Amino acid sequence: MSLCVVGSIAFDAVTSPFGERERMLGGSAVHFSLAASFFTDVRVVGPVGGDFGDDEYRVLHDRGVNTDDIERVSGNTFFWRGRYEYDLNTAHTEDTQLGVFGEFEPKLSDESRAAETLFLANIQPDLQRRVNDQCDGARLVGLDSMNLWIDTARDSLVQTIGGVDLVFMNDAELRMLTEQPNLVRAARKVMDMGPRAVVAKQGEYGAALFTPEGFFGLPAYPLETVVDPTGAGDSFAGGFLGYLATHGGDATAVESVLRQAMTYGSVLASFNVEEFGTERIRRLTREEIDERFEDFRRMTSFEVVPSA
Amino acid sequence: MSLCVVGSIAFDAVTSPFGERERMLGGSAVHFSLAASFFTDVRVVGPVGGDFGDDEYRVLHDRGVNTDDIERVSGNTFFWRGRYEYDLNTAHTEDTQLGVFGEFEPKLSDESRAAETLFLANIQPDLQRRVNDQCDGARLVGLDSMNLWIDTARDSLVQTIGGVDLVFMNDAELRMLTEQPNLVRAARKVMDMGPRAVVAKQGEYGAALFTPEGFFGLPAYPLETVVDPTGAGDSFAGGFLGYLATHGGDATAVESVLRQAMTYGSVLASFNVEEFGTERIRRLTREEIDERFEDFRRMTSFEVVPSA
Repeated sequence: MSLCVVGSIAFDAVTSPFGERERMLGGSAVHFSLAASFFTDVRVVGPVGGDFGDDEYRVLHDRGVNTDDIERVSGNTFFWRGRYEYDLNTAHTEDTQLGVFGEFEPKLSDESRAAETLFLANIQPDLQRRVNDQCDGARLVGLDSMNLWIDTARDSLVQTIGGVDLVFMNDAELRMLTEQPNLVRAARKVMDMGPRAVVAKQGEYGAALFTPEGFFGLPAYPLETVVDPTGAGDSFAGGFLGYLATHGGDATAVESVLRQAMTYGSVLASFNVEEFGTERIRRLTREEIDERFEDFRRMTSFEVVPSA
Repeated sequence: MSLCVVGSIAFDAVTSPFGERERMLGGSAVHFSLAASFFTDVRVVGPVGGDFGDDEYRVLHDRGVNTDDIERVSGNTFFWRGRYEYDLNTAHTEDTQLGVFGEFEPKLSDESRAAETLFLANIQPDLQRRVNDQCDGARLVGLDSMNLWIDTARDSLVQTIGGVDLVFMNDAELRMLTEQPNLVRAARKVMDMGPRAVVAKQGEYGAALFTPEGFFGLPAYPLETVVDPTGAGDSFAGGFLGYLATHGGDATAVESVLRQAMTYGSVLASFNVEEFGTERIRRLTREEIDERFEDFRRMTSFEVVPSA
């Protein structure tokens, strides 16, 4: 079972109420890969610049991520600088330098093309579609996007969504994409575009899964300290698709497996935000993941009331 | 088992994207009473004016609510006019007329004083405390409040909270009260003031229960149409405390019963918002309530992953 992700590989500078980092490994494909690597083989596709060095590769290799399709070109790696206020819900972007990402044209190796599961992380929707077209053997394709593409490339995004199985988006972005303030209706409208299921990421409130069969809601893990939310959504998708790739990971996955995937996604996202960047995930263990999975079961279960 | 509630009894005028009502029965004590009436005997305490007539009493009597402690005085019943925009999350208050509520001094009958469960709905915290002092036999006391009292009567509110067992507040108000942006810490700070448990109401995202033993999170029922959110929080508290009053309703209620109470609260809130004012709850049946309780179990359960 192999899982391929295309997305950004970046250096991030982050300031939060709990400290700051001037330059750390980040990017949607990186956060996704590390999270998914606890469940399955992962190949990451994306461009880096000459400033991307052995230390950065080592973070990925230490988790067994295959970096053969990381394309090293002249120029600088994508850079993002952001700041979080005390409520930690909103990232304030202070600087974005596309660097080598500005000219990125994805070229996938035969091995990546053959991946059974594909994740199109948050990049320009034309690019996402071109990658999806190359991976014609993928049995399950997931996609993330953001308000920027809804604003600037809506038609392309809708077309791209039409070719995937699973959409992961923030609830506000699902509403924005469908121009539908009610989330249940918004999710249905997205399913009408093609996907079999929609995952609404709700930040500190958790996540919701919409399928033709029904609805599943899961709260977020109750953390007393959220240090850096950057990459939480990609870690969620990585845990979700990583688990799904090894447990009947195709477009017809049964509801019960999707719900377990939701929970593993929430587990990985919760660890991701406990420290800056990839710091927590790099020393995470599978045992810790499974313990927190059980925590989620304890936090959400309640008993039937005996009939009177 | 009897349950007493003190709070507002009102006429509401509401405009939402789904229509409008110029004058309908409302108020925190009314929404609470109707919801709780499906589980236990309810007595409502509060003032009304000369404009409060047989039709209004009938709504309460039809659900078996005891109105002996509704005090009818000269003047007009409390009036609130509000408007909801398309996102339905925020009530925009357009008019508030305190009417007879401006001079309200609660006087409880012996029967109300003897109630085993007491709910102090959202009124001025000095008043809440005076009612709590009168009900010295209550084994379980719940409280709701709002940003207005945090702004204008914070010390009194903190003192009142110190004398209750359960606090029901919106998550934003818990953060505001404790000046703590993290909800887990905010809930702990409120428990440090005295209460044994805190319920954070999260609107469309559901609700969270904090106790010394742990955390329980429940999504909201996924509704495609929310017509009128007015009274959702009071219906939640009514379902919660109504159930609790008949199932070990004291301050030492076990966690499993509190979780079932959370679910019944969510069920009642979800029905409340389906139509204007009390319209849906008035023709609700216990069978519908129990069906939706089961829906919640289906929407939130997931299976253990077998060990590899």
